[in-house]
Amino acid sequence: MTQTSPLAPSSFPKMPAIRGIEMATGEAGVKYQGRTDVLLAKMGAETVVAGTFTKSKTASANISWGRAALKSGKAQVLVVNSGNANAFNGKAGEDSVDRIVNFCAEKFSCDKSEIYPCATGVIGEPLPDEKITACIDNLSKNLQGDIFEDAAKAIMTTDTFAKGATKTAKIDGVEVTINGIAKGSGMIAPDMATMLSYIFTDAAIEQSKLQAIFSQGIEQSFNRITVDSDTSTSDTALIFATGKAGNNPEADLSDFTEKLHELLLELAHLIVKDGEGASKFIEIRVEGAENDMAAKTIALSIANSPLVKTAIAGEDANWGRIVMAVGKSGEQANRDKMSVSVGGIVIAKDGQLNPDYVEAEVTKHMQGQNINIQTNVGIANGTATVWTCDLTHGYISINADYRS
Amino acid sequence: MTQTSPLAPSSFPKMPAIRGIEMATGEAGVKYQGRTDVLLAKMGAETVVAGTFTKSKTASANISWGRAALKSGKAQVLVVNSGNANAFNGKAGEDSVDRIVNFCAEKFSCDKSEIYPCATGVIGEPLPDEKITACIDNLSKNLQGDIFEDAAKAIMTTDTFAKGATKTAKIDGVEVTINGIAKGSGMIAPDMATMLSYIFTDAAIEQSKLQAIFSQGIEQSFNRITVDSDTSTSDTALIFATGKAGNNPEADLSDFTEKLHELLLELAHLIVKDGEGASKFIEIRVEGAENDMAAKTIALSIANSPLVKTAIAGEDANWGRIVMAVGKSGEQANRDKMSVSVGGIVIAKDGQLNPDYVEAEVTKHMQGQNINIQTNVGIANGTATVWTCDLTHGYISINADYRS
Repeated sequence: MTQTSPLAPSSFPKMPAIRGIEMATGEAGVKYQGRTDVLLAKMGAETVVAGTFTKSKTASANISWGRAALKSGKAQVLVVNSGNANAFNGKAGEDSVDRIVNFCAEKFSCDKSEIYPCATGVIGEPLPDEKITACIDNLSKNLQGDIFEDAAKAIMTTDTFAKGATKTAKIDGVEVTINGIAKGSGMIAPDMATMLSYIFTDAAIEQSKLQAIFSQGIEQSFNRITVDSDTSTSDTALIFATGKAGNNPEADLSDFTEKLHELLLELAHLIVKDGEGASKFIEIRVEGAENDMAAKTIALSIANSPLVKTAIAGEDANWGRIVMAVGKSGEQANRDKMSVSVGGIVIAKDGQLNPDYVEAEVTKHMQGQNINIQTNVGIANGTATVWTCDLTHGYISINADYRS
Repeated sequence: MTQTSPLAPSSFPKMPAIRGIEMATGEAGVKYQGRTDVLLAKMGAETVVAGTFTKSKTASANISWGRAALKSGKAQVLVVNSGNANAFNGKAGEDSVDRIVNFCAEKFSCDKSEIYPCATGVIGEPLPDEKITACIDNLSKNLQGDIFEDAAKAIMTTDTFAKGATKTAKIDGVEVTINGIAKGSGMIAPDMATMLSYIFTDAAIEQSKLQAIFSQGIEQSFNRITVDSDTSTSDTALIFATGKAGNNPEADLSDFTEKLHELLLELAHLIVKDGEGASKFIEIRVEGAENDMAAKTIALSIANSPLVKTAIAGEDANWGRIVMAVGKSGEQANRDKMSVSVGGIVIAKDGQLNPDYVEAEVTKHMQGQNINIQTNVGIANGTATVWTCDLTHGYISINADYRS
């Protein structure tokens, strides 16, 4: 059994029920024994859904289904199983999705396009979907409102702690709730989504607006984190809005947008904090790039560099590796104007060592759990911030025998 | 002290002297104590040179010098120091290069543009160039022809064994010799060059032809290997042709080209075999891609995936991670036509598990030192082969405390 990440929060947040959402979790025994592995969520008939999916070219059958279903913009059922990703198993994978969807459509008397079956776990094995539909059958009799911690647990794979976050926002004076859960620990370099994350709100929002706000938030949160540069075949983030809060859907959404974006960032950070083997949470800020996209590319080049990540694991102020990672990014950098700071301490400026630099000060910062790296590449005004964790013996231990 | 890589060859090859090349190695004490850290090579006055350098945007002062000097196409002096890369130290770095070049130009009565100073080691520290020029002064009195193993040792940093290869080729009936040395172990994802590699030949070849043949060979060798996806600020590969073999420079170069390309590939493989912490040598072949460049991108996506590399370290036939790495490459792949083989055994075809697949057979292959991965992505006819090593606890141990 893997130990809980040292970066885990002390407890799961108290998350209230959301009007229009009921859930249940169960043990289908898809792969894991003695723990829950299926989450069923039933939403009210007026629920709108927005979402993003992995850009992987080998995406799972569930992703193909979800992408098509999302065109309806409506949702009534979410089913998530852990232990088997239902990916790269050909026609069998599509058939599994069909059987789960058909079962749910009949069970809950809704349109197939309102059903979202999601899967996470091992790739390339047939999904025992009959275990999942049998489980759904049981769970449908026992739906409850406030079991978000159970829900977050049921979707875990190599995660060492359940991940959830909650916010309240006001739309035109009406209070609405936003709850989110997420899973992810390895194979984390989301590209238009994360491993799996589900957000639920009782707000009433028009689907196209919800999609726009959500996509914008995903780009600034899940799309800015990386554990190991490996992008999953199953990345999915969905938001369900039941409309039960009864607010005016035409009202100003600025507070809702702000709170939703905060919640997405909180969940994204929790995934980094549960990065496989992680012992440090790292924020990387790039400034002075050609534009914001270039800044993001440079920041991810630093965040994905095994040499930067191992230096941080070793609490070594090896800033030359940061310079190397900027240089390999392919984006413009002015070697003779560059600066590098760690923990707010200027190590190098104008392309060389700061004469006032005292390594012991940076070493002290590196002995902490939260590491800040900042670099200005001296070209223009592009900026970006990304988050990652260090690369430790724990990552190797977890991944050299995960499947076996 | 790090142990010699388990993938190291049993001995350094016997490498004959090359007419027109003399060398010496010495201990300047730049960083390391009790070992050589400077290589001096003196070439005849008619020597032509071709080369490639890192594409890093934070390349060292030595790279800038070499790139400019190469325009002359001539060479008489090569100086390589290990222990300090003379990178990212601003004007001080350029001044160090100037002092070494000026010293050598006077010492050896040649043009500055015929002098190639190279450096490898830690980034961001001033180079104590006076130690290097003092060492060159001594070495100039003691030049010899056949000390390629000493030469290969003097340029090592975290390398666990010296790397050399030799070939003979015929040009128009005249026998010529090609000797090469290289260093590299971590920060290996060469992009137009490798860490450091120097090739010497007595062949007479026009500079522009030599550059063309060399660049072509580099693209198929050093540019197809990766240890950790991190590209060095000092990557340099140079070939020196003294012309002392006396062959007709206008003659057919096909045998020379073939042998040179073989030699480059041999050196590139040796670098992978000394990859930090490596326990397996991995060949990755991609077929059926949109074109050859797309195939290379996919192959490197597999080769750089921490999850693929750790699975191989764990001798785990976790082929789903190969599918994942194809999917994240950004290049086209037809999920439902893809095939994956490991060790020549077809694991998946037509986008799903081969019904005849027996995992034990692949596991047996994975317990060996040489791992073969093959995938056809089912789009068109693009192919590429790249080489890498696995990702082990050794890599973490080496890199979490390399600089301290």
